[in-house]
Amino acid sequence: MLSGEDSLIARYFGPLATDPGAFGLGDDAAVIKASGEDIVVTTDAIVEGVHFLSNDPADTIARKALRVNLSDLAAKGAAPAGFVLTLALRAADDAWLTPFARGLGEDAGHFGCPLLGGDTVSTPGPLMVSITAFGRVPPGKMVHRSGAKPGDRVVVTGTIGDAALGLDILKGGAVAAALADDAVAREMLVGRYRLPQPRNALAMAVRDHAHAAMDVSDGLAGDLAKLCAASGVSAVIDAESVPRSSAARGLVKRGTIGIEALVSGGDDYEILCTIPENRFEAFAEAAGIAGVALTSIGTVIAGPPVPRFLDAAGRDIALQHLSYSHF
Amino acid sequence: MLSGEDSLIARYFGPLATDPGAFGLGDDAAVIKASGEDIVVTTDAIVEGVHFLSNDPADTIARKALRVNLSDLAAKGAAPAGFVLTLALRAADDAWLTPFARGLGEDAGHFGCPLLGGDTVSTPGPLMVSITAFGRVPPGKMVHRSGAKPGDRVVVTGTIGDAALGLDILKGGAVAAALADDAVAREMLVGRYRLPQPRNALAMAVRDHAHAAMDVSDGLAGDLAKLCAASGVSAVIDAESVPRSSAARGLVKRGTIGIEALVSGGDDYEILCTIPENRFEAFAEAAGIAGVALTSIGTVIAGPPVPRFLDAAGRDIALQHLSYSHF
Repeated sequence: MLSGEDSLIARYFGPLATDPGAFGLGDDAAVIKASGEDIVVTTDAIVEGVHFLSNDPADTIARKALRVNLSDLAAKGAAPAGFVLTLALRAADDAWLTPFARGLGEDAGHFGCPLLGGDTVSTPGPLMVSITAFGRVPPGKMVHRSGAKPGDRVVVTGTIGDAALGLDILKGGAVAAALADDAVAREMLVGRYRLPQPRNALAMAVRDHAHAAMDVSDGLAGDLAKLCAASGVSAVIDAESVPRSSAARGLVKRGTIGIEALVSGGDDYEILCTIPENRFEAFAEAAGIAGVALTSIGTVIAGPPVPRFLDAAGRDIALQHLSYSHF
Repeated sequence: MLSGEDSLIARYFGPLATDPGAFGLGDDAAVIKASGEDIVVTTDAIVEGVHFLSNDPADTIARKALRVNLSDLAAKGAAPAGFVLTLALRAADDAWLTPFARGLGEDAGHFGCPLLGGDTVSTPGPLMVSITAFGRVPPGKMVHRSGAKPGDRVVVTGTIGDAALGLDILKGGAVAAALADDAVAREMLVGRYRLPQPRNALAMAVRDHAHAAMDVSDGLAGDLAKLCAASGVSAVIDAESVPRSSAARGLVKRGTIGIEALVSGGDDYEILCTIPENRFEAFAEAAGIAGVALTSIGTVIAGPPVPRFLDAAGRDIALQHLSYSHF
């Protein structure tokens, strides 16, 4: 008696519904139990041709869709509780759905974020994967964009700018040409575009120590400007200290790209946060235990919400574009 | 410092973020407070050309996207708590976004379901509106598909089949021709397609009295089959008793459509539930107070999960299609 849609859901996604609140995907809704915690809700969609490319592997598309949401939960200091999935497909293609569901299930298991429900619809247009993810924090403890205070250190995880370089490679741009002989670097950068590494291991430390936090998804410069605007502060960033991979460093050194390509490129999915000086040591220690690289890149100051990026000589770098925007 | 996407969100959707947990849409996540209740989560997307037509008014597209989710909450016995919106747009068009946001805001206010957050992305393809909605029920009290018991009455709200007839009119089908001289009937049926009437006023009565419930979105026959399958029961339905509008009744009488067009058409968004006989009077009284029309259409019986639809002479009606399926 199952219709095509129901049997598709049962076949590919039923095995992922490991949480009792998902009711095996056999009902019209799911239940999230909450015993006094706040439920943190975040939603992010990825669209074929915009956030991923048509020939990206199905399993990395699935993982990226979930990870961009996990990254938001991490930056808000929340522990993952589950997610719902809306999948807009042109056709029910087993060769695509099988690796998609497998990648999604592996990440859901790895990050402790089970599938709770969803909707599968047909579309004549591009593939779209929309995920709403849920996390838990103690009451009132979600970390906001708006808590940064002058004197805080500005800290980022991982490296910045690699994903944008990876996208340039996939599009056959200048980076692809510059790295024509370096397959290892190309693969690393493409991997950073296709498969973000959300910093959920750091979520509790962010909750314990950060005044403000967000994930870097649209470019470090633009996202820092948003954090500053929400907090009513400014920031001074030492551009040289922005952490970069050796591939990115090499490209800057050769003049293929400038600092702007790194700090205004999107898709980093690192955590940007501000930490009061007297908490930094404890935060760094927690990050060490979590195995997440941290870099202090500057300081929150009073002033208008446009962060200043300074070069090695202390001169302002004029950035043309702060971030990616859809419109 | 706002990017195009942020200013779009602030301008059109900021005024809808009336809940304190939305943080004015100025953060990366929202918070749902829960003091011991279960949070019910449902997600439904509507796609241009599939669930609505390109020239449907923007305000009814917005309302329909929210209402199809409100309808799920109603059928699960949940009180609305809020929703997040993912909007995939080709362009940021003020003439479209203004009525879209106005319609969405009016319905959010009317149904007590505030906007908590969302994501706006660009797409080269069809418009898509994906909503994840949240409700609250006392712990363990969500109404399931799976609780129907032999002897329960099968009950539906409102009228069945009108929306599918409205879609036929918009597509210029046989119903459009048959009602060429009846603008009032055409408008009513089109309205039923574009603007579902979710039965949230009945949610508490469903929670108090129903053994099983779901909303009718893919066709009564198919959705009843799903409810029967989930409950491990069958049902016998008196097809003549399936409630229909006078327009639908006239079309059946003239032979333009048969019963199948009504019970297998989609987009009704009425509540289908099973009520034990000894609770029916109390349920009907609650529905009267809520102003929601109820009709008993049959009985749950033991047996295989394919409901039987009987004609006036008690003969089985053979249905070719039970419901709409995307794949």
